[in-house]
Amino acid sequence: MGPHPAVAAIRLAVRRALHDILDDYGRTPGRAPDERPPSPLVLAACSGGADSMALASALAFEAPRLGLRAGGVTVDHGLQAGSDQRAADVVLRLRELGLDPVESVAVSVGRDGGPEAAARDARYAALDAAAERHGAAAVLLGHTRDDQAETVLLGLARGSGIRSLSGMAAVSGAGGRYRRPFLQLDRQTARKACMVQSLSVWDDPHNADPAYTRSRLRHEGLPALEKALGKGVVGALARTAQLSRDDADALDAWAGRAAAGVRDADGNLECAGLRALPPAVRRRVLRRAAIEAGAPAGSLFARHIEEVDRLITGWRGQGAINLPGRVVARRQGGRLVIRQG
Amino acid sequence: MGPHPAVAAIRLAVRRALHDILDDYGRTPGRAPDERPPSPLVLAACSGGADSMALASALAFEAPRLGLRAGGVTVDHGLQAGSDQRAADVVLRLRELGLDPVESVAVSVGRDGGPEAAARDARYAALDAAAERHGAAAVLLGHTRDDQAETVLLGLARGSGIRSLSGMAAVSGAGGRYRRPFLQLDRQTARKACMVQSLSVWDDPHNADPAYTRSRLRHEGLPALEKALGKGVVGALARTAQLSRDDADALDAWAGRAAAGVRDADGNLECAGLRALPPAVRRRVLRRAAIEAGAPAGSLFARHIEEVDRLITGWRGQGAINLPGRVVARRQGGRLVIRQG
Repeated sequence: MGPHPAVAAIRLAVRRALHDILDDYGRTPGRAPDERPPSPLVLAACSGGADSMALASALAFEAPRLGLRAGGVTVDHGLQAGSDQRAADVVLRLRELGLDPVESVAVSVGRDGGPEAAARDARYAALDAAAERHGAAAVLLGHTRDDQAETVLLGLARGSGIRSLSGMAAVSGAGGRYRRPFLQLDRQTARKACMVQSLSVWDDPHNADPAYTRSRLRHEGLPALEKALGKGVVGALARTAQLSRDDADALDAWAGRAAAGVRDADGNLECAGLRALPPAVRRRVLRRAAIEAGAPAGSLFARHIEEVDRLITGWRGQGAINLPGRVVARRQGGRLVIRQG
Repeated sequence: MGPHPAVAAIRLAVRRALHDILDDYGRTPGRAPDERPPSPLVLAACSGGADSMALASALAFEAPRLGLRAGGVTVDHGLQAGSDQRAADVVLRLRELGLDPVESVAVSVGRDGGPEAAARDARYAALDAAAERHGAAAVLLGHTRDDQAETVLLGLARGSGIRSLSGMAAVSGAGGRYRRPFLQLDRQTARKACMVQSLSVWDDPHNADPAYTRSRLRHEGLPALEKALGKGVVGALARTAQLSRDDADALDAWAGRAAAGVRDADGNLECAGLRALPPAVRRRVLRRAAIEAGAPAGSLFARHIEEVDRLITGWRGQGAINLPGRVVARRQGGRLVIRQG
């Protein structure tokens, strides 16, 4: 008799990710076969919640079968009383699964970009450091299809185009360090897999706190959307993420080539060449030029780019356009000059 | 003292659309200046609801100032008892606004594609016929930014990519016949404009009927999403529509060129050439080839195209792929053959 379907599902997802890691690891440039450590290490990032406990359990099961070592890291964000105790508890449970090494890392969360972004930044910095310290080939993250759907809706709320609809990547970080094996798996399957394996899980009260946008989305927004549009919404959002990501990549590549084609010897952009581009490509060329000139990407909104675009498509002698980061865009003759100062 | 801000807003939106219509009308190919009727006619499509009554009132005000004639059409879908009486009432109210000609058209709604799609198809067929009959230069539609946001969410629920996120176009139909001046205007402004102009409006009970997906979205889904994500959601969805439309147009153009580049003398697709394309472009080339071979666009889903794509990117000798419309895709040597039969 095989394992419970939910356990089979989480293991299959992790096994596929491990195969990919082994493939990529074999191809790591500049590393001769005899320089590789005999058994690469893969870490599971684990909060103690159902998704990442399911992840850790599947990693503990699959890694040895593929000649990999499996370890775990939990991050103590220090945001709740007793979080250190909980982190110590997660460490114990990861060890019980057979993971080794296992480590708890305490971080201090700043305030930049709001509480959720600050916690995320601190967490990834800690995971990066842990991966380096242990020489890990990869770090697995337990984000599910439901998390992906929420991320797409959060991106949608920004209204800044398809890149923000593309959610989380299955592979991300420097050298493809982070892997998300569960992006096609629903949260319910992860919970079920913990239950049938008798793994105790910890429910982060933040996940139910209506002060957090993601929590409101999870407990109110998405259920209401499912009620209106049907149960397939989560899957549809996840597919949208993948399709949008590919589309955004293709358009970025096009914009990169197009930008090279419309630059003059001084590095300014030729308006006639810009005008001939499709609007979607032209806007990306302008956005990229503004960022290269020093505008911070996070402060550069669609309305800024639209205003610069009107220097090309709606030219009637308007003055210079001020962009974030003291960057100024102006039309000079047939050229668009985008510069800091 | 000028008009109420809401009235100023609806008039400005219509005035801009009329300027565009005049610009385009002047450029209509094959029509010499002296062949044009002296004063082009613009029709407002009007259900009697607040959005389209606001539209009709603004058209009645602006058209004469630009040397245009303004008329109105209302469609009697025959789906509710007394709908003929209501249509007659809308005709009266449009005449009171000074529109001429004004006409009510009765249609019979079929069942294809569900009740909402069938009603829409019947409506546009009737509007097309009315426009032809009266020789109208354009037909204005009262869709607001809120309708656009709902349309984007409906597209999102399909999960079929950015074309389905691009909502309704400001200009659509044969020769750009249909114009949607209110796509940037919120529903509340249209209601307010009717109120301050003492225009009585008719609330279609279908709009509040939870049997309709769009109605559930309007009254439950979108408000819950706004509660979770903030009031800016409607605007963000409308911006997403515009950006997605431009992106989808650019990628379709790329796919059109790419398809020509990878066809051999027999019209089959070369696998090596396909493989070299970005996934987003390759999938569009494959989709287009399947439709050209006879697959109905509406039945061709992302999963079909993914399966065909694996003949290129994951070739391990798999058999022919069956697509809707008895279209079959198979790999023969280095070629992809997509054919009906």
